[in-house]
Amino acid sequence: MKGARPTPRLAFGSSVSPGERLLPEEVAVALSFNGTTQAVMMATPEDLVDFAYGFALTEGIAQPDEITSVEVVELPKGYDVQIWLRSEAEARLTARRRSMVGPVGCGLCGIDSLDQALRSVPVVAHSGFRMTATEVMAAVAALPSQQRLHDATRAVHCAGFWTAGSIVLAREDVGRHNALDKLAGAMLRSGTQSTPFLGAVVLTSRVSIDMVQKVSMLGAPVIIAVSAPTADAVTLAEEAGITLIALARPDRFEVFTHTDRLTTEVPHVG
Amino acid sequence: MKGARPTPRLAFGSSVSPGERLLPEEVAVALSFNGTTQAVMMATPEDLVDFAYGFALTEGIAQPDEITSVEVVELPKGYDVQIWLRSEAEARLTARRRSMVGPVGCGLCGIDSLDQALRSVPVVAHSGFRMTATEVMAAVAALPSQQRLHDATRAVHCAGFWTAGSIVLAREDVGRHNALDKLAGAMLRSGTQSTPFLGAVVLTSRVSIDMVQKVSMLGAPVIIAVSAPTADAVTLAEEAGITLIALARPDRFEVFTHTDRLTTEVPHVG
Repeated sequence: MKGARPTPRLAFGSSVSPGERLLPEEVAVALSFNGTTQAVMMATPEDLVDFAYGFALTEGIAQPDEITSVEVVELPKGYDVQIWLRSEAEARLTARRRSMVGPVGCGLCGIDSLDQALRSVPVVAHSGFRMTATEVMAAVAALPSQQRLHDATRAVHCAGFWTAGSIVLAREDVGRHNALDKLAGAMLRSGTQSTPFLGAVVLTSRVSIDMVQKVSMLGAPVIIAVSAPTADAVTLAEEAGITLIALARPDRFEVFTHTDRLTTEVPHVG
Repeated sequence: MKGARPTPRLAFGSSVSPGERLLPEEVAVALSFNGTTQAVMMATPEDLVDFAYGFALTEGIAQPDEITSVEVVELPKGYDVQIWLRSEAEARLTARRRSMVGPVGCGLCGIDSLDQALRSVPVVAHSGFRMTATEVMAAVAALPSQQRLHDATRAVHCAGFWTAGSIVLAREDVGRHNALDKLAGAMLRSGTQSTPFLGAVVLTSRVSIDMVQKVSMLGAPVIIAVSAPTADAVTLAEEAGITLIALARPDRFEVFTHTDRLTTEVPHVG
């Protein structure tokens, strides 16, 4: 199965039994822009072109039409995803790199590095997108059917996009940020969506600050997460104009910010 | 409660009820060595001196006796943990920084960056440390009593150290790597342990390659994780001489590598 490997193991319980378990693969993926590596992620080795487009967008490096080509190069120790940008985007990235300090050994002081980690985010426009409580629960209930790799391994994250009554696309990865970036890239490349993405990003994972940062770059007005958010992710979602729904199950959920996007259902009469 | 904040929310289920939920805090923490930032992590703002000692050890920057002082400075956007090293350790770090390429905008090519992500790890010595299956399950059963912040928020990771029949220390964090680094630092600072740590690192989280890398730096012979490993973390644990136990519950578990550290229990007769 792509993205997973059968791995021998001994199972201990009421008895001891040898056998194997399907476990997700985890490889090092370098993302290089115009020949210079920007980041190395440990990721599931699938959908790497989607990953390139999504990472470029959510990290504010390039819009999809600024990417001229993406080549995935397999190396002995992992993959180098070589992304080539138009000259304007390259000039912007070069200027940004010059002004960058840290992390990872090129920082000058904690103050500058903290500023960089807590980059300011765009505020998601109030587009008129709304969901009913029934739709939120339907979106959560629909996600498992997209979790092919999780079904097999019980050990990867999924990010899906819900709009107009269904999950239109989903991606899985051992890393929750990677799953979201791959989803974003897949949406851009499918051509059915362009930013802002008018719908809900549905996540199996917890919601930390950087997940909210990435979703704000997509312009998506709603996050629905199965797990809990951090208190500071809630604060950022409030500032970013995002409706943050979490601890979501097919029969219940909690809304932490911008509750006005949840519309009241008119009770069925008769 | 330290490390968590009550956050207002609307709960939807069979009815809608306002209220609040205790959520974990997540702040930016810069780790600076002799005045230069090495990394910025999103972390739970507790036990930051433990974090400093543990991160320095598991990332191969400094042994505890090479650290002369740690000062935690609160800044408007987070914390700067200022770690001061003896001159030999500083010289080593400076040399390493010079030879470092990427990630984050200072890389030259994917090949060098991939090498860095997949750093080679020390092999844990075969010390004679053994566990019975009953002890493995007891260690898993003992961890929840250490999860103060998780009890309140259901949203943080925990890393504990099991030796001689009990969990002797544990630390919690929104990040699983941070929880492990804080545990390592707490062990070093408590003075009861020095590397190699002869016991089992017990984790609530999944086991990825970087978790195995960090445990190998502690010299701990056994990892017991509640969640699953990646296939590649299993490969690395095999190479690093670590017994990797995962999918562990109080009544069952699976062993993926170095099963010889699990001793057979002599059945009780009579």
